[in-house]
Amino acid sequence: MISSKMRKNVEGGSAIRAMFREGKEMAEKIGEDNVFDFSLGNPYTNAPEEFGSAIKSLIDTENSLALHGYTDNEGDALVREKIAASLNQQYGASYRKENIIMTVGAACALNIMLKSILDDGDEIVLLKPYFTEYRNYIGNYNGRFVEVDHDGNLLPDLGDFEEKITKKTKGVIINTPNNPSGVVYTGEILDKIGEILEKKQKEYKTDIYLISDEPYRELVYDGLKNPFVPDHYKNTVIAYSFSKSLSIPGERIGYLAISDEVGDSEMLTMACSVALRILGFVNAPSLIQKAVSMCLDAKTDVDYYDENRKLMYEGLTDMGFECIRPQGAFYIMLKTPTDEDEFIKKAKEHHILVVGAKGFGAPGYVRLAYCTDREKIKNSMKNFRELAQEVL
Amino acid sequence: MISSKMRKNVEGGSAIRAMFREGKEMAEKIGEDNVFDFSLGNPYTNAPEEFGSAIKSLIDTENSLALHGYTDNEGDALVREKIAASLNQQYGASYRKENIIMTVGAACALNIMLKSILDDGDEIVLLKPYFTEYRNYIGNYNGRFVEVDHDGNLLPDLGDFEEKITKKTKGVIINTPNNPSGVVYTGEILDKIGEILEKKQKEYKTDIYLISDEPYRELVYDGLKNPFVPDHYKNTVIAYSFSKSLSIPGERIGYLAISDEVGDSEMLTMACSVALRILGFVNAPSLIQKAVSMCLDAKTDVDYYDENRKLMYEGLTDMGFECIRPQGAFYIMLKTPTDEDEFIKKAKEHHILVVGAKGFGAPGYVRLAYCTDREKIKNSMKNFRELAQEVL
Repeated sequence: MISSKMRKNVEGGSAIRAMFREGKEMAEKIGEDNVFDFSLGNPYTNAPEEFGSAIKSLIDTENSLALHGYTDNEGDALVREKIAASLNQQYGASYRKENIIMTVGAACALNIMLKSILDDGDEIVLLKPYFTEYRNYIGNYNGRFVEVDHDGNLLPDLGDFEEKITKKTKGVIINTPNNPSGVVYTGEILDKIGEILEKKQKEYKTDIYLISDEPYRELVYDGLKNPFVPDHYKNTVIAYSFSKSLSIPGERIGYLAISDEVGDSEMLTMACSVALRILGFVNAPSLIQKAVSMCLDAKTDVDYYDENRKLMYEGLTDMGFECIRPQGAFYIMLKTPTDEDEFIKKAKEHHILVVGAKGFGAPGYVRLAYCTDREKIKNSMKNFRELAQEVL
Repeated sequence: MISSKMRKNVEGGSAIRAMFREGKEMAEKIGEDNVFDFSLGNPYTNAPEEFGSAIKSLIDTENSLALHGYTDNEGDALVREKIAASLNQQYGASYRKENIIMTVGAACALNIMLKSILDDGDEIVLLKPYFTEYRNYIGNYNGRFVEVDHDGNLLPDLGDFEEKITKKTKGVIINTPNNPSGVVYTGEILDKIGEILEKKQKEYKTDIYLISDEPYRELVYDGLKNPFVPDHYKNTVIAYSFSKSLSIPGERIGYLAISDEVGDSEMLTMACSVALRILGFVNAPSLIQKAVSMCLDAKTDVDYYDENRKLMYEGLTDMGFECIRPQGAFYIMLKTPTDEDEFIKKAKEHHILVVGAKGFGAPGYVRLAYCTDREKIKNSMKNFRELAQEVL
């Protein structure tokens, strides 16, 4: 017998499984080439050469115990030093190795941070649209999530944001470049978020951590430079993942960066390291920690996603679909001309699989993940056109 | 500000950190060669050749996305199939790939299992002496731990065990070969545990899972064969780790095995897979999953530990110390002739670092980890002899 808490989570996941099954059945019936599945946000490009070479050279040169043994819970000291130095060089920051905790991906980083700050009933603010999984992460520690509306263009409604911050707000999770929307917050938006949080911290005499979930940090387009969030609000903790920048999502590697300027920094870092241990992560995979530290300047083929983005955005808007122009990540949001569920059903009739954005807190949109084979995107246009004729 | 829950955990860890610091300071003062640190249970032998070769060949031959991409939450299908087949071959079991969930080490396996079965206030039974961390794992999900006394020889007092099983008991964690004691439960003990649990399941009409934490499965000595726990009680879930058998503890790789005979098997497996996702593990490290599946018959140098064990056990008992003869893992328990804390202090004066077993639920003992350089053990004997003269 599983717990009643868990039963809810299992039931909650059944819709996604049902969709996955449907896609498989469809592929069996009409052939995989004729199914246009844009539902999954899985990296599609290859890891850079350097990553495999780094691993092989580590195996050839390092002592087995040093390479595959436990590291400190917070990670290998040299790896953390290199990451601090790389952040400092890129952003003019002043991290030391003590500010970096290596994690089992960004999902782990968020979990240990939330475990460290949440008592029962404490609140975490989420800005619509947001990655659905945050709700589960918050629930793991008996926290409550509080949703902030978007402004109609999938950017935060800052008036609503200010109203939603209470005495119980322990943190705010932002995710820019954003999943599901592909929007990138400008420095101005981050300044305003920072100002509101500073004011509220003073008013309530609390620490409100801005938790910046940055798996898509390097995936920005149009020559944009992604603002560095701690420049806009001191009390920012970064949760980073190498999943997308190096296209190694299965390896589960990332970090938390908690600068000295973050409230209660030393105690928070220690708490996150203890949380890493007692939640059973223990340490980020050892060989992979060392390998990524040798590839901090390497990147997967971001241009591939950029080309896909243009094809998809231009293709869809030319047909008359209304889309929010994405500038980062590998998602595009399409405003559904009819009811969201109705649209998803119709799209499926044209063998197009998309995810409704209701679960992301943004009903009236569907998310299309363009991290796929380019030919798929090209070939899907005929089907999208037929869909457009039917629904527009 | 960290949460008040977490504050307790951080404070709880400070004794271990203090000891670690003391050891370092001692090494700086008198030289590392003169400090005999038997406090840490870290594997000491090298990973078998095959492990590094497997990784290199995977990088040379596999497609980047297949190798480093997300696997299913429950792990790569082929890896799970191979593990099921290996268990079936070794133990005459009948696992299918659907029964295996790849995990980020055994600590992750235990956490996802506990998250799957515990509602607030549910009970998990621990048999003294037990790995301290279990208490934290249970606490993560608001469960209560219930302790069962040992029989004076560090084996479970089965009378007390029977009494401690209640309507609220969701599971029992056993760990054989045992950390901290090195004892190995015989088939007879496991049969009795199984009988009691069967009876209690019927009495309360509940499922009581026997959670068998098996990181030391392959580390058994004296020609002993470690009994296969599910043979003694159907409702057994195995939490396994490759940390010790392949000496790769930093790589965080293991699995849960939930046979079809386990109560509510299908739902439990699904719940564990969801727990893996929502706790932020997502999937076990992908490259490492594939690498271990190519080394299922490989083993680190277990004889090295065995030699160390004999040296230490014979050395200490010859001096007159009373020790429980270990037959597995890489720990030995010494019965302290004086008060435990007093003994630890005295040992430190002789530059010997050991862990008190109070935290393992077995006051009156200290744990010595002999997974160290053999020379260290040999050289420590002089110091132990001086200690013996003082305390015996």
